[in-house]
Amino acid sequence: MFIIGELINGSRNKIKKAIEEKNHSFIQDIAEKQIKSGANALDVNAGVSPEKELDTLKWLIEDVQKVSGDTTLCIDSPNPKAIEMAIPLCKVRPIINSITGERTKLQKLLPILKTYKPKVIALSLDDNGIPQTSEKRQENAIKLIDIISKEEIPHSDIYVDPLITTIATDYKSGAVVFDTIKAIKKKFPDVHITCGISNISYGLPARKEINRVSLIMAIAMGLDSVIMDPCDENIIKDIIIAETVSGRDEYCSKFLSFYREKKL
Amino acid sequence: MFIIGELINGSRNKIKKAIEEKNHSFIQDIAEKQIKSGANALDVNAGVSPEKELDTLKWLIEDVQKVSGDTTLCIDSPNPKAIEMAIPLCKVRPIINSITGERTKLQKLLPILKTYKPKVIALSLDDNGIPQTSEKRQENAIKLIDIISKEEIPHSDIYVDPLITTIATDYKSGAVVFDTIKAIKKKFPDVHITCGISNISYGLPARKEINRVSLIMAIAMGLDSVIMDPCDENIIKDIIIAETVSGRDEYCSKFLSFYREKKL
Repeated sequence: MFIIGELINGSRNKIKKAIEEKNHSFIQDIAEKQIKSGANALDVNAGVSPEKELDTLKWLIEDVQKVSGDTTLCIDSPNPKAIEMAIPLCKVRPIINSITGERTKLQKLLPILKTYKPKVIALSLDDNGIPQTSEKRQENAIKLIDIISKEEIPHSDIYVDPLITTIATDYKSGAVVFDTIKAIKKKFPDVHITCGISNISYGLPARKEINRVSLIMAIAMGLDSVIMDPCDENIIKDIIIAETVSGRDEYCSKFLSFYREKKL
Repeated sequence: MFIIGELINGSRNKIKKAIEEKNHSFIQDIAEKQIKSGANALDVNAGVSPEKELDTLKWLIEDVQKVSGDTTLCIDSPNPKAIEMAIPLCKVRPIINSITGERTKLQKLLPILKTYKPKVIALSLDDNGIPQTSEKRQENAIKLIDIISKEEIPHSDIYVDPLITTIATDYKSGAVVFDTIKAIKKKFPDVHITCGISNISYGLPARKEINRVSLIMAIAMGLDSVIMDPCDENIIKDIIIAETVSGRDEYCSKFLSFYREKKL
């Protein structure tokens, strides 16, 4: 499981405050904790107004890289200019979060992909928004995989996000995502599937329980990356067991080491 | 989810003792508790030596039926004679646990199916034992569905058990079962899929955690029945959430009632 740590996001209050106070040690601390907990990449989202975004993102990336070693950064911005500024700052080839089928945004991002060949998170939406059916989400994802591949970015550097939405307003939306994961993974075994899980329970009680079950089901379908708080030990435990049960842990060795370290 | 309560089994020490002491109230109590906890059917297994089995099974069935109302019984015996004796005792058309592709046993059970048209649990094994691959398990299941259907038993009365075995000795055995569930449910939408989960973790630590994750994954694949201890509230909770997340709970209404009853 390729874990993208989600904690460095300026829309979270603690991070917002640290950004305003230029609190280096706070940001670096969060970065280190996520890596120590098992994050394979760190999402970096400035979460500020557009006029401040470039400066803030630059500061964040430089700050995080003082402690992040060879951990991949995931440049999270709606603004192609911010992405273009950020890529050359990264010591390790970063992931771009995100590309979509929205025509105007796509046209601005494609030259950046051509120049830098970054890894890419591709959201299965287009100018019509998030489709309700799995077939249309698959279609959007396949189109993006095709477009990204033409920029000489290999399948193994593409992370499709099937876009989880809440089951509170459409009780079949979980099943739609699971079908999408299964279908894309079958058609493109080397393409990764990633997502943030927590939207699935928006507006419902017992959200943690719903999120847990949803993540396990998504892994059963082929999810091999997740955008999450890697410091949540219960979720990490679920991921290890889910990978083992679904046959991805040869001789159950990862599970057994985890158990021996008394984390279970 | 069609829950088959597994607790009335003479190989369990408490039940063994109750059988020996002809302790009516103990057996009836276990039956009532399972029904109250949500069991849709009660497995009844004498778990004694062959020469005592017919008498014991008869006693158990008559005893359980004093409290079981219109709950289905699941006659669990390796012995076709015991099954033949037991069916007419049942007030509600029972489930036979189980039929397999083993030629000699099958030949003895088919006339019983022809006469009584019971519901049937069909194990995907034959004279060569439990197959290692999903393809062969599917083949065994399809053969049995075909044979049972010829006795005018409808698909909706057939429960295929894909046979969970431990991942401790074959780390891909969970994935094999998940693929089998998915394939059978796709080919025969009206056929039910059932199984006991706990074998998956045999020989490993943290068995409860492994069993939980496995059950959730199996439900994602289409499992719609389970042989379990229905008094285990944590598992019932997982089942309710798993069915909701996978789109089987219209408007999340079952989940929301469950929540309002403060069971979450």
